[in-house]
Amino acid sequence: MDTAIPQYLQRLIDDARAREERQDTDGHPDDRIGIALCTSTGHLYAAGDTGAEFTIQSVSKPFIFALAVQRRGARRVLEAVELEPSGEAFDEISLGDHYRPMNPMINAGALAVNQLILGEDAEADDRVEIVRDLLSKLAGRDLKVNLDAAREEFRSADRNLALAHMLRSYGIINDSAESAVWGYTRQCCVSVTARDLAIMAATLANHGVNPITGERVLDARVCRLTMAVLSTTGMYDATGRWMARVGIPAKSGVDGGLIGMLPGQAGVATFSPGLDKHGNPIRGVRLFEALSDDMGLHLMNGRGRSAEDLSRAMYDDNGNQLVQLYGAIDFTGAEAALHSLERRDADGGEIVLDLSEATEAQEMCCQMLTTGVDELRDAGYDIRISDPDGLLVKDGG
Amino acid sequence: MDTAIPQYLQRLIDDARAREERQDTDGHPDDRIGIALCTSTGHLYAAGDTGAEFTIQSVSKPFIFALAVQRRGARRVLEAVELEPSGEAFDEISLGDHYRPMNPMINAGALAVNQLILGEDAEADDRVEIVRDLLSKLAGRDLKVNLDAAREEFRSADRNLALAHMLRSYGIINDSAESAVWGYTRQCCVSVTARDLAIMAATLANHGVNPITGERVLDARVCRLTMAVLSTTGMYDATGRWMARVGIPAKSGVDGGLIGMLPGQAGVATFSPGLDKHGNPIRGVRLFEALSDDMGLHLMNGRGRSAEDLSRAMYDDNGNQLVQLYGAIDFTGAEAALHSLERRDADGGEIVLDLSEATEAQEMCCQMLTTGVDELRDAGYDIRISDPDGLLVKDGG
Amino acid sequence: MDTAIPQYLQRLIDDARAREERQDTDGHPDDRIGIALCTSTGHLYAAGDTGAEFTIQSVSKPFIFALAVQRRGARRVLEAVELEPSGEAFDEISLGDHYRPMNPMINAGALAVNQLILGEDAEADDRVEIVRDLLSKLAGRDLKVNLDAAREEFRSADRNLALAHMLRSYGIINDSAESAVWGYTRQCCVSVTARDLAIMAATLANHGVNPITGERVLDARVCRLTMAVLSTTGMYDATGRWMARVGIPAKSGVDGGLIGMLPGQAGVATFSPGLDKHGNPIRGVRLFEALSDDMGLHLMNGRGRSAEDLSRAMYDDNGNQLVQLYGAIDFTGAEAALHSLERRDADGGEIVLDLSEATEAQEMCCQMLTTGVDELRDAGYDIRISDPDGLLVKDGG
Amino acid sequence: MDTAIPQYLQRLIDDARAREERQDTDGHPDDRIGIALCTSTGHLYAAGDTGAEFTIQSVSKPFIFALAVQRRGARRVLEAVELEPSGEAFDEISLGDHYRPMNPMINAGALAVNQLILGEDAEADDRVEIVRDLLSKLAGRDLKVNLDAAREEFRSADRNLALAHMLRSYGIINDSAESAVWGYTRQCCVSVTARDLAIMAATLANHGVNPITGERVLDARVCRLTMAVLSTTGMYDATGRWMARVGIPAKSGVDGGLIGMLPGQAGVATFSPGLDKHGNPIRGVRLFEALSDDMGLHLMNGRGRSAEDLSRAMYDDNGNQLVQLYGAIDFTGAEAALHSLERRDADGGEIVLDLSEATEAQEMCCQMLTTGVDELRDAGYDIRISDPDGLLVKDGG
Repeated sequence: MDTAIPQYLQRLIDDARAREERQDTDGHPDDRIGIALCTSTGHLYAAGDTGAEFTIQSVSKPFIFALAVQRRGARRVLEAVELEPSGEAFDEISLGDHYRPMNPMINAGALAVNQLILGEDAEADDRVEIVRDLLSKLAGRDLKVNLDAAREEFRSADRNLALAHMLRSYGIINDSAESAVWGYTRQCCVSVTARDLAIMAATLANHGVNPITGERVLDARVCRLTMAVLSTTGMYDATGRWMARVGIPAKSGVDGGLIGMLPGQAGVATFSPGLDKHGNPIRGVRLFEALSDDMGLHLMNGRGRSAEDLSRAMYDDNGNQLVQLYGAIDFTGAEAALHSLERRDADGGEIVLDLSEATEAQEMCCQMLTTGVDELRDAGYDIRISDPDGLLVKDGG
Repeated sequence: MDTAIPQYLQRLIDDARAREERQDTDGHPDDRIGIALCTSTGHLYAAGDTGAEFTIQSVSKPFIFALAVQRRGARRVLEAVELEPSGEAFDEISLGDHYRPMNPMINAGALAVNQLILGEDAEADDRVEIVRDLLSKLAGRDLKVNLDAAREEFRSADRNLALAHMLRSYGIINDSAESAVWGYTRQCCVSVTARDLAIMAATLANHGVNPITGERVLDARVCRLTMAVLSTTGMYDATGRWMARVGIPAKSGVDGGLIGMLPGQAGVATFSPGLDKHGNPIRGVRLFEALSDDMGLHLMNGRGRSAEDLSRAMYDDNGNQLVQLYGAIDFTGAEAALHSLERRDADGGEIVLDLSEATEAQEMCCQMLTTGVDELRDAGYDIRISDPDGLLVKDGG
Repeated sequence: MDTAIPQYLQRLIDDARAREERQDTDGHPDDRIGIALCTSTGHLYAAGDTGAEFTIQSVSKPFIFALAVQRRGARRVLEAVELEPSGEAFDEISLGDHYRPMNPMINAGALAVNQLILGEDAEADDRVEIVRDLLSKLAGRDLKVNLDAAREEFRSADRNLALAHMLRSYGIINDSAESAVWGYTRQCCVSVTARDLAIMAATLANHGVNPITGERVLDARVCRLTMAVLSTTGMYDATGRWMARVGIPAKSGVDGGLIGMLPGQAGVATFSPGLDKHGNPIRGVRLFEALSDDMGLHLMNGRGRSAEDLSRAMYDDNGNQLVQLYGAIDFTGAEAALHSLERRDADGGEIVLDLSEATEAQEMCCQMLTTGVDELRDAGYDIRISDPDGLLVKDGG
Repeated sequence: MDTAIPQYLQRLIDDARAREERQDTDGHPDDRIGIALCTSTGHLYAAGDTGAEFTIQSVSKPFIFALAVQRRGARRVLEAVELEPSGEAFDEISLGDHYRPMNPMINAGALAVNQLILGEDAEADDRVEIVRDLLSKLAGRDLKVNLDAAREEFRSADRNLALAHMLRSYGIINDSAESAVWGYTRQCCVSVTARDLAIMAATLANHGVNPITGERVLDARVCRLTMAVLSTTGMYDATGRWMARVGIPAKSGVDGGLIGMLPGQAGVATFSPGLDKHGNPIRGVRLFEALSDDMGLHLMNGRGRSAEDLSRAMYDDNGNQLVQLYGAIDFTGAEAALHSLERRDADGGEIVLDLSEATEAQEMCCQMLTTGVDELRDAGYDIRISDPDGLLVKDGG
């Protein structure tokens, strides 16, 4: 079905192309441009050049960081790399305390992280294969390394080789610099489309479950950490302005890719060759700005609805007072439900707290509900909890 | 009513105090500690030393940045200050392009921003009064400048005076250095409690409306920008780790204050003298870590429930198929509703899209709904929209 | 008498003026230009605008550094300032280890040094007077502070005030920032001519004795240290190139002054408003380049004659073999004399080592001579030492 | 013959060894220590371990810089490297304007310079051979590359490989990083003794002529430039203090070598393993400090005698008034001679200006003499110039 989203995305692309025709100076020799959006519910929308293949480049960094954390643990990864914005450009050395790279989203950090995804004695080829495998699962299709591109890139990889030797000299990596960079270069040269990237981003946003294939690819905790790191470092030394303006954790790549994650909701990807001085795709940045404005996707918008809405007070078929919770019960929902119960009429008969449409609940929130209900009962309220799935018993009991 | 939150907060405080007794080295001469939480629905919870007064210090920075943006516009403010994390300490000069301070949360930036809240010819005293007035409205009570503290602080304000002279030398500020720093020092010496800070944080989180007094103090757009800036710069050069670990836009102050905003949901504040090497309160940071873990408040958790939950498909009293939207309709909700409608039985009679419990809707989301419904009708679905408040007409028509 | 030097200097000035007429773009609104040279023997040569008064500015730095070392000792001065080139511009903060300014020739260092010339409790006015007095003695005439210029300069002294506050914040200076900068500003505004500067430079080159007045103004050791510091820091971040190209320890000032010292030989000064990007006078630098080339003044030229020339072997009136040393006997002269003695004919009768025209001798060199002569005597040489002034007895005995 | 210098040097070594026995903490596992001094007149003095072989390391840098300037011209070399002190450590990247290394004495600069000694297409092996050949000529004996040491060093050359790749990425070098570093590593592993280094240093001090073999190895202008560069950069980020304290252009190496040049006079070398935090040999630095103090070798001491001594006024055998110049006539000597002539009695008959013992004269100085004498003749002086070698005619006529 058509939800107005495809038309909207197409309009964004049309506007971008029209703008370029008006402004010759704005044009990039490669004027391909595309945008794709994949929801956590598994719906994929696309417009423009979303089937064109390009190399993933630095857009791979958050996924490989996630892979390293998943396999080796956050503690081990943080021995090799810090998590601070550096205020510097993408290829800066930016070594911080203990000579660790400042964060995993600059090249030095990404090289260090790539080395961690398998044990110390692992072969570079094995690392490349596990990288390719992860990216494939995230995209939901079998991705390939563009070896021609990788070989071409490796021929002028002096900057990365310099970083690798520097990391070796501080004991951050043990592999030979050539092997480390050749492995990393192939990671960067996995061939993707904007559609692939949208699904990969959606998997990250969906806390590790690919919303198209349904496969759990990464742990939720790892995805949360990865998106948080992107929120302070993903757009190089323009991340602060990006978060202020667009408000979506994102990551850019030199070959034109750009992804953004709406935690819990959707992943977005654009493809548009041509970079600004910070190393971010010029037209991709504009597409995200429009998207954030038009759809209200800025992270700091918050839930966009008052907490009262999260629990509904009404009457059930039997005329009993009803307070209903649905979906995942979080702090705000639990707190709202209790206040809603309190506003019911204590003398008006049984009040039902209905959890039949709730799907999960954090331990702390279950405690809040059980403690609060106990107290209300002590105060004279006649409350019955309908919890057919045993959420309160299972998680919070 | 007691919602388990007070007990929980008290347990956090008790744990912190017990830890200090165990670890003598951890102790700070001033062992006061408190935590307060204020929801967007106006409920305030507190434990520990939340009535103790201390000076607001750098916790004032985001509010005064917001005030400057509100009064002078973002464009004017960004002429004086950048929005990038600097990777440097709180009192670094950190001048970026065009010699602007790197962001408004380091001292150089805050000094520049303080100068902007009134016109160029304004008196310092007038700036102090407007600052005090704003902070009072945010806290919901009349706050005072602690002039003794301010005078004491001004006596050793060399670092800030150095920054002010530097800013003057680059034409970023025009006021005399002494006047600028004396004005800024008084801003930093507004006397607050942890309860005050929780309400102030909640007002920012609640997009500018004080949830206790109901007064709109700042525009929603300004609050969004302010929280976004905090997400990359609020905890000085430990912001990256903070966002990874805690995931809440926050701001710390040297006198022990620390606030965090859950956009749309709540504001949290702790008070605990004693700073770590980054200039952030040691025990306040630990309280926030526990709170984020226990209550699942990390920003990257996202909505915590599947998008399907956001629209509910059922039958109304007349046996008609029903899809109901409530609260603020955003992209995810609108998209889910349309897919929910599509899954209804096209041959099963009238389907009602019920917006009677929805409170607001973004233009783009209205377009999605109207376009989608039109298309479904073309496909044979018999859909009736119940929109008693005219949301679709008003906003999206 | 005219030694061709005046004509030569006049030709340099004429060439500079002719160049400017040819190259309009080269011109400075203030096209005054002058050069003066004062030898250690007290001869002063000048051409161009050498009587024009201007403010000494940073050319005062080496002299005030020398004054502080003279009065407070090198150890005390080095607690406040380092002696390393910073690779940075003249007004950089450049704090090194222990937050000391990197060297006394950048503004931060000069501010710190100015504070040291009298005790901690001294009044700024007293410091200014002692500065004025020293500069007067160095110039051989009573110099005045240009108070109008000082007041004008102080009005836009934000950069220096910033440095002073920074130094206060690290405990490098104790005076108020305003007093420190106002004192330093008056130091910089002492009014001088190129002739004055040439004599001042010559006094430094002449190891502290003003070659015109004959007054000892500074200790030789202090002058040596000061010239050494200038050799690595005197021309800001162009010092390396300057030493490579010109090879003369030098110091520039923002009002057009520029001095150079040929240790033991002469002082040179130019006056030419208009600075290059490093903060050095454009035309003054060119004058020094020509002077160094034409006269072979590069420090690395060394003595310019073979060491053999330093002792002369001949016969005296009685036909005795003679080896004669003159002037100050240094390592090279003593060593050459001994080898010269050894080359005489051991069987040719008495050989006289004539020190009657020597003026002084270092202890180590006296030891070399006495030890060497003893050994030659043991080897059969008949050597008589003629030492009417008792140099060997006095210094080396 | 023994000139007291050997004993003096032996005492320096004995003192150093005694100090180490007293201070265990001061000891280095390798306690070898030696010092050698070679005069421009070809006398070599030595004490301690001056026959022990070690690798030349960074002490090769000034000589290879000189070689590059000699072969390719200063202009070409300065396209690849700047000449400014960097204020940074020996292995810093320190790229300045146009991404050139800051100076040729840090590793990045030395790598760039090594690439320049032959044309762009030269083989690394040819560069190594020409380096070995130059160092051999400077030392006056056939030196060898210690290939075992070179191979060992190359195995952990990551830092230099990082620098080489960085230089390649900016187009400063074209050779492969491996080849560049392997060539440079062999340059650093030429095996030398302290005696060798003293002769090499003396050759540089002697303006390019090896004082032992008499061979001209480098041009005087190149040597002058090289020593000047060392005076601002030779001791890494301790060069400022070194020039202040010791006052001798110098260069240190990581394997214990340290050379110093007294322009025109002598070269000194020490060998003492064990480095301070700046990368300079701890005990070698102390030896130089003592040597500079005891022998008065500080560059800023200047000539150490009054300019009057440089020309001698007396009477010749015929009773004629005589003013005699000897050695190389420089500015100071010419100026002194003229003033000496002027002080003779104009009515006392013929005055002879005797240049028979002068060896060379700069053009400017010849002009000074001829102009000055003409003028004195006009004033009534009867002056005859005795210039048997035609110095004034040849150079200045």
